[in-house]
Amino acid sequence: MRSSLVMASDATVGCGAPHVVIIGAGFGGLAAAKGLRSAAAQVTIVDRRNHHLFQPLLYQVATAALNPSDIAQPIRRILRRQRNVSVALGEATGVDLAARKVVLREEEELQFDYLILATGATHSYFGHDNWEHSAPGLKTVEDALEIRRRVLVAYEAAERESNPAIQREWLTFVIVGAGPTGVEMAGALAEISRRVLSLDFRRIEPCRARIVLIEAAVRVLPAMSPESSANAYRQLVRLGVEVMTNTAVTGVDNNGVNHASARIAARTVIWAAGVAASPLARSLGMPLDRAGRVVVGSDLTLRGEPRVFIIGDLAALQQDGKPVPGVAAAAMQEGRHAARNIVHSIRGETLEPFRYIDKGTLATVGRAAAVIDFGWIHLSGLVAWVLWLAVHIFYLIGFRNRVLVLTEWAWVYLRNERGARLITGEVEPLIERGEHREEQ
Amino acid sequence: MRSSLVMASDATVGCGAPHVVIIGAGFGGLAAAKGLRSAAAQVTIVDRRNHHLFQPLLYQVATAALNPSDIAQPIRRILRRQRNVSVALGEATGVDLAARKVVLREEEELQFDYLILATGATHSYFGHDNWEHSAPGLKTVEDALEIRRRVLVAYEAAERESNPAIQREWLTFVIVGAGPTGVEMAGALAEISRRVLSLDFRRIEPCRARIVLIEAAVRVLPAMSPESSANAYRQLVRLGVEVMTNTAVTGVDNNGVNHASARIAARTVIWAAGVAASPLARSLGMPLDRAGRVVVGSDLTLRGEPRVFIIGDLAALQQDGKPVPGVAAAAMQEGRHAARNIVHSIRGETLEPFRYIDKGTLATVGRAAAVIDFGWIHLSGLVAWVLWLAVHIFYLIGFRNRVLVLTEWAWVYLRNERGARLITGEVEPLIERGEHREEQ
Repeated sequence: MRSSLVMASDATVGCGAPHVVIIGAGFGGLAAAKGLRSAAAQVTIVDRRNHHLFQPLLYQVATAALNPSDIAQPIRRILRRQRNVSVALGEATGVDLAARKVVLREEEELQFDYLILATGATHSYFGHDNWEHSAPGLKTVEDALEIRRRVLVAYEAAERESNPAIQREWLTFVIVGAGPTGVEMAGALAEISRRVLSLDFRRIEPCRARIVLIEAAVRVLPAMSPESSANAYRQLVRLGVEVMTNTAVTGVDNNGVNHASARIAARTVIWAAGVAASPLARSLGMPLDRAGRVVVGSDLTLRGEPRVFIIGDLAALQQDGKPVPGVAAAAMQEGRHAARNIVHSIRGETLEPFRYIDKGTLATVGRAAAVIDFGWIHLSGLVAWVLWLAVHIFYLIGFRNRVLVLTEWAWVYLRNERGARLITGEVEPLIERGEHREEQ
Repeated sequence: MRSSLVMASDATVGCGAPHVVIIGAGFGGLAAAKGLRSAAAQVTIVDRRNHHLFQPLLYQVATAALNPSDIAQPIRRILRRQRNVSVALGEATGVDLAARKVVLREEEELQFDYLILATGATHSYFGHDNWEHSAPGLKTVEDALEIRRRVLVAYEAAERESNPAIQREWLTFVIVGAGPTGVEMAGALAEISRRVLSLDFRRIEPCRARIVLIEAAVRVLPAMSPESSANAYRQLVRLGVEVMTNTAVTGVDNNGVNHASARIAARTVIWAAGVAASPLARSLGMPLDRAGRVVVGSDLTLRGEPRVFIIGDLAALQQDGKPVPGVAAAAMQEGRHAARNIVHSIRGETLEPFRYIDKGTLATVGRAAAVIDFGWIHLSGLVAWVLWLAVHIFYLIGFRNRVLVLTEWAWVYLRNERGARLITGEVEPLIERGEHREEQ
């Protein structure tokens, strides 16, 4: 079938204007689309989802502090006033560079003059894809709701269970990987058990839940400074999290985690470790790095393809001998840069090299505690936490979201109340899933 | 397996206190639990869900105005301070009256001295259960999210579609049944198409969507006064809804609805018609009415079982020759009454007959329009709408929910913005589901 996605042309741009296709509406893709606001181009942005997701707060959906719609906005809504952009809901399955087209599911095709690939990354289980069922990761709204469901169901199952050993397993939560997501998850899970649920049960004491954070590197937050690591470690221990660094996981199943020296029996395991680039990269037939990312030039184009740009977590880019990190700030800078280079190209100018400017990294460790690296200064504790709140509120898209997220955070902070403690979907199979562990 | 659900006894009540089991934590069950606050009894409330749902606002979740957690609260949270109540997550599959026990899924059992059955009702397709797949109803959070997904995907599919006839079908929405839920859904869908989405698409004009409301009775809102019906009808027509009364649906499939005289081609059909009592009723082996409800005496007990109470939509109760309506107010009154009668029974006193006090019915028809019947006065338009808002805010459980719902409503009203426009779950199969209609 020929494409039905060739978009109606925008009168202000004209029919002969080049067609820029952006695949992925994450931080990178959206920044690129906005960067093309005044370009003499028609832009089509394609995403599998109808919404842009503010991923840094996704763990708060998983831990019942926020609703999905607090941190997500319809892509159409964000770009509604930019008349040279069309939004299409669809999944890109491959790129045909020679024919200059993107192939979508359902055999539709999308012809392009310029292409920006920004499909990001997903979890990597280091070759153990069978671990995924037992230890879901956290990339999409659905992932977050699934983790929330498992956490809440675990307490319900513990309350129902009469065998103390099994009850103990239900009350053990293991997080694999102590990057920002793992640290934030561990802190939030500790707070839920210590503060939020304390009065809600009759037979179990939620505050006795065991939260274990496992990291293969020698310290938590390995990408941050040693000071920040040490601060985060101290704050985690104060919250009652068991931190195990220098510990590689060797096995995961529905009932626990194995590492080199022992086994931890746990019915809830959350994966916050490896990252792998989106599989779309492979369809390019171009050199990939070990994580499956596409090697790009300093102007963000694909080797030999001056009209094809790769940005965000999908791109493998070196700067001063170090890889540009897979963070939102880098993806946004790259998106804006790719847009600028497309404008240059349309005008027949030469492309500019990209330079990542590191504005600092930050992570939160539960209520009123966070760590921030600005390079020249390291902050921790309450000051860092207030800055963390401010930065996240500032970057949330939409005034409505900012109001609602602030309201929800006030509740979490003042009342120890997490508003989104709903279990949706089936409950019983999840409880039963644990029951049959002895057979495995 | 013997029950592991016999709950830890509450010290203030004592071990010998009778055990009251409540099945279902809707309006009726929750009112009963609260009514037993000071009773010399141990109470266990069992529900399949971990949350109590404020069903009258569920259509607002389906139409993306509210989040599920705005209208739902964890049952444990609501009852956390009532120490003689235990909450159990579980599904009752049958009742053994002779042995005085409730059977749960997973072969667990729950022994009771008193039983309150409050499992409510579900949709009825009048014997055409195969219509359910094509025309989902609206009873649970999952139902609401499914309808929201279908509505939002329909606009996306229309934008992608190049065949004008199929595009038209994607932009046709049929609601079957013009009770309060159907009228409210139709009004909200009309507003979405006319106001919310107007700027978001490039190829389709959402305001040209067709919203059809079909009702078998001679007027909309048949349970309300003729004045209210006429007012609601006028308000619906003003919003651009096609209202077809006196029209019985004879067939439903993925691509439309048949009625006596014609067929309406539509890719989105929503069921807001019949109601059937929860199937648990059948396990009692007692007389049921045509809708599957259990016939109860005026003291709300089951015939010959003075310790078993049936309340809410599960009970078939006549008063002054008319059935007590299946509304939240009636369920709550019955719940409180059953609790009072259990206290009487524990003290060896005689049970009191129940009397339903009708405090009025109300329905909203889109923004700034509603109808209210108080019996002695009928209101419509803006005044009715403000009252409708106030009543719903007042009965929402939890101060947090009231704040958030007010914030969201302010957005809907002032900005024509529906905050929860997220499509979660798989998108493509839904679009494809429509594509293959010709084969059916």
